[in-house]
Amino acid sequence: MASFPVATTEFFNPLGHEEFRKQPHLVVDFLADYYKNIEKYPVCSQVKPGFLTETMLDSPPFQPQPLEAILQDVQNHIIPGITHWQSPGFFAYFQSNGSTANFLGEMLLTGFNTVGFNWLASPAATELEIVVMEWLLKLLQLPKSFSFSSEGGGVIHGSTCESFVCTLVSARQKKLNQIDSSKRDSTNLGSNLVVYCSDQTHFSFQKASQIVGINPNNVRVVQTTKSMNFQLCPNALLKVIKADVRAGLVPLYLCLTVGTTPTTAVDPLGILCEVAKQFDMWAHVDAAYAGSACICPEFRHFLDGVEGATSFSFNPHKWLLTSLDCCCLWVKDRSDLTKALATDPELLKNYNENECSKQVVDYKDWQIALSRRFRSMKLWMVMKSYGVSGLREFIRRHVKMAQHFEALLFRDKRFEVVVPRNFATVCFRIAPLSESSTEEDVNRLNKKLLESLNGTGDVYMTHAVVENIFVIRVAIGATLTEEKHVNMLWDMVQKHANALLGSQELES
Amino acid sequence: MASFPVATTEFFNPLGHEEFRKQPHLVVDFLADYYKNIEKYPVCSQVKPGFLTETMLDSPPFQPQPLEAILQDVQNHIIPGITHWQSPGFFAYFQSNGSTANFLGEMLLTGFNTVGFNWLASPAATELEIVVMEWLLKLLQLPKSFSFSSEGGGVIHGSTCESFVCTLVSARQKKLNQIDSSKRDSTNLGSNLVVYCSDQTHFSFQKASQIVGINPNNVRVVQTTKSMNFQLCPNALLKVIKADVRAGLVPLYLCLTVGTTPTTAVDPLGILCEVAKQFDMWAHVDAAYAGSACICPEFRHFLDGVEGATSFSFNPHKWLLTSLDCCCLWVKDRSDLTKALATDPELLKNYNENECSKQVVDYKDWQIALSRRFRSMKLWMVMKSYGVSGLREFIRRHVKMAQHFEALLFRDKRFEVVVPRNFATVCFRIAPLSESSTEEDVNRLNKKLLESLNGTGDVYMTHAVVENIFVIRVAIGATLTEEKHVNMLWDMVQKHANALLGSQELES
Repeated sequence: MASFPVATTEFFNPLGHEEFRKQPHLVVDFLADYYKNIEKYPVCSQVKPGFLTETMLDSPPFQPQPLEAILQDVQNHIIPGITHWQSPGFFAYFQSNGSTANFLGEMLLTGFNTVGFNWLASPAATELEIVVMEWLLKLLQLPKSFSFSSEGGGVIHGSTCESFVCTLVSARQKKLNQIDSSKRDSTNLGSNLVVYCSDQTHFSFQKASQIVGINPNNVRVVQTTKSMNFQLCPNALLKVIKADVRAGLVPLYLCLTVGTTPTTAVDPLGILCEVAKQFDMWAHVDAAYAGSACICPEFRHFLDGVEGATSFSFNPHKWLLTSLDCCCLWVKDRSDLTKALATDPELLKNYNENECSKQVVDYKDWQIALSRRFRSMKLWMVMKSYGVSGLREFIRRHVKMAQHFEALLFRDKRFEVVVPRNFATVCFRIAPLSESSTEEDVNRLNKKLLESLNGTGDVYMTHAVVENIFVIRVAIGATLTEEKHVNMLWDMVQKHANALLGSQELES
Repeated sequence: MASFPVATTEFFNPLGHEEFRKQPHLVVDFLADYYKNIEKYPVCSQVKPGFLTETMLDSPPFQPQPLEAILQDVQNHIIPGITHWQSPGFFAYFQSNGSTANFLGEMLLTGFNTVGFNWLASPAATELEIVVMEWLLKLLQLPKSFSFSSEGGGVIHGSTCESFVCTLVSARQKKLNQIDSSKRDSTNLGSNLVVYCSDQTHFSFQKASQIVGINPNNVRVVQTTKSMNFQLCPNALLKVIKADVRAGLVPLYLCLTVGTTPTTAVDPLGILCEVAKQFDMWAHVDAAYAGSACICPEFRHFLDGVEGATSFSFNPHKWLLTSLDCCCLWVKDRSDLTKALATDPELLKNYNENECSKQVVDYKDWQIALSRRFRSMKLWMVMKSYGVSGLREFIRRHVKMAQHFEALLFRDKRFEVVVPRNFATVCFRIAPLSESSTEEDVNRLNKKLLESLNGTGDVYMTHAVVENIFVIRVAIGATLTEEKHVNMLWDMVQKHANALLGSQELES
């Protein structure tokens, strides 16, 4: 590389007032235009592997580039490779909500750029997080036992998987502490611990179990059935646990779900938490997607029984107008987390430790990493800007659109809704054409339908396979999605199904 | 709560063009004013515990609040509780660099708000990450074996602790795979695995070991000495490993550091990686802080020997003008990560899997979580906006300021630089007054000096204790710090030392 140029030495200021006052405005306009034009782009990117790695120079520029040129690069080279999660035609996976208030929150937290690992490192970051977690607790009508005013408390993690990892480690530590080490070799105990979930539980749970070192043979995946709407069956669970106990294994952790990823099934929390209690297990409730809906009184019943759980998490970064990364976790006993995750190095000792160390929360002891972003800022901005009324209206609007889409499907006998809709995700397929259709044929047909719809670029949906049935999932919840987009989707579904069913008839 | 008001139903659009085009400008101006006034605030917040939790209403607002009122709240209630990591008087911990380019990058990634867990979910997010990781690899002159063009590759994690967790799990899986399971009970093997670090290694490493389930008795912390500048001594390490092997234990992982947190010590990588190789261990090099300096040819020698490592990480979110969260990890064999962390659920299957699954990177298999922010965007913005020349100038400026501060200390016999400065962090103290001063007296005096300096609110520094010596750390590297701030610090150090030493003389 060339030798170091003298020219920049004098003037280079990476937070210079002039640039900072000017350049962000260009990016705001750029993004406003992006949202304005977003329907012109194919929802799911249609580039080929290598589209960018082969385009970009293989070394960073030596000299600074002007912002205008960089934004041109974003427009020409990066946007074509984006799968547009903010598009109103995005119905895939679960949505990832953006919003103006969240955007402002991200601006503020990036601007302050604090690293609030402990209270003193930035008191506002810690205390605002406590405030928003208590606000959400009220909004979700979570039991008081999860509140800081009791022995519990809440923390913002980056992802559900982080919440799994932290609660698994806490559960293990608690179990090890319970057993007198003189009586039992803790090493053997560790390899005898068993965790439980259903075949509908998010795969992150098995990954988290693997990460924390649970014996891979000790992860029990209880099968669910369509006839029970893919809920975890308490009796089936009980049978598995009892067999483990008889074999000398130690039940550790039960993972329950409100709103599973494949079909948004809801496990019966009350009775399952009772089972967990009976065997002195940690019971975690993962409501990553559906938790947001439960801020509306009419959907709160889906959380009934959560009072029996040891911990509960949901992701505002899916459906509560807050961007990644924002997973909210509450525990009933905050000392469970800190006993397993606390560290107290000299460098981080607060000076007035005698005065305040007992009173303050050091969030580094509630999570994996030391460093943490000021994530409460964006959640606070969202709640202040939209209010409870706005947030509920936002959720209800999507549920209404999903009801509408479901009603359209019910009216057309060629389709079937495979599992009952609980929230704003509809799981449907083209129904078997006749008694003689094999399940493979029907699956192939529906896979073709999905490919054909996604191929248009106007919409993007994903699928699930449950009890060998290929299901098309329509997750309605992108911030920009309106009823007209759902109607457009319905027109497309009919048109593409017509084409497929027509050709099918010709083939057969 | 009141019943749901009808009024908002019609007009509420959380990404409405009008708000999105208008409101961010207010926040830009708000932050520009914050930077302009930042020196007026005490660097370390002086609020008391409960300052915010007791102020904020205990429920979220029901109705939306106007942005102007929210920003007023930020000004009046939140800013007083912020410890100002962006202040030019911030010399604590290690700095957390903000910059305009990073800010623009965060705006873009928040605006797109993609969730790029696998290639298809947003090809640009994956490929831009590959591009910037290859750029950085070149900039750091990392060996080609860490490149995607060989068997290696790089990924952006949220924190060093995440990199520790992922590489520990990968190392364990690799070790388990190496051993024929029929010959050996893998359960016992798991509890026999041993990890190694020094007493200067970041405490996150021990936390990560605990999280992944390493037997707590099998974490070896090798003592370092001031006489060896707190480097990990290869012979001391060798002795510990040999004792473990004799005891039937299995060496798994060695954690090395370039730029330790207490004193920025640099472990001798070459010879230590040789030791790791001899015992078939994973060798990780953590250069969280100092890695950024190594983009300058004159500091690159600190990484000599890294070619012997299995993995390497550093944090642009400390000293490379990029905000949290941005930890860059490279591995020599990318299949080590994916064999331990890959998941392949039906929902995420790429449609054209036959066509491209072999060619693409699915970053979910390189990290803990499924979801991931488009973090490469901010790193790319920083590298494009400042160029290699700007980034090097930025590093050199801090190192020059640290040299300057060190020279001032050298000239005044009352002070001593406790360990040689390697980068831009100076570790000093008031030297023992006489032969008869006990170490406790000297430590007490220096603790008082630090408290007295921090108490002014004009600067914020933290301390370390090494070989029972209390050391004041001056980490020079905040984006806004200029030579005049270092001179101000020096004036303050002298003045406060005068006061302390004067009163000390009166006391004795």
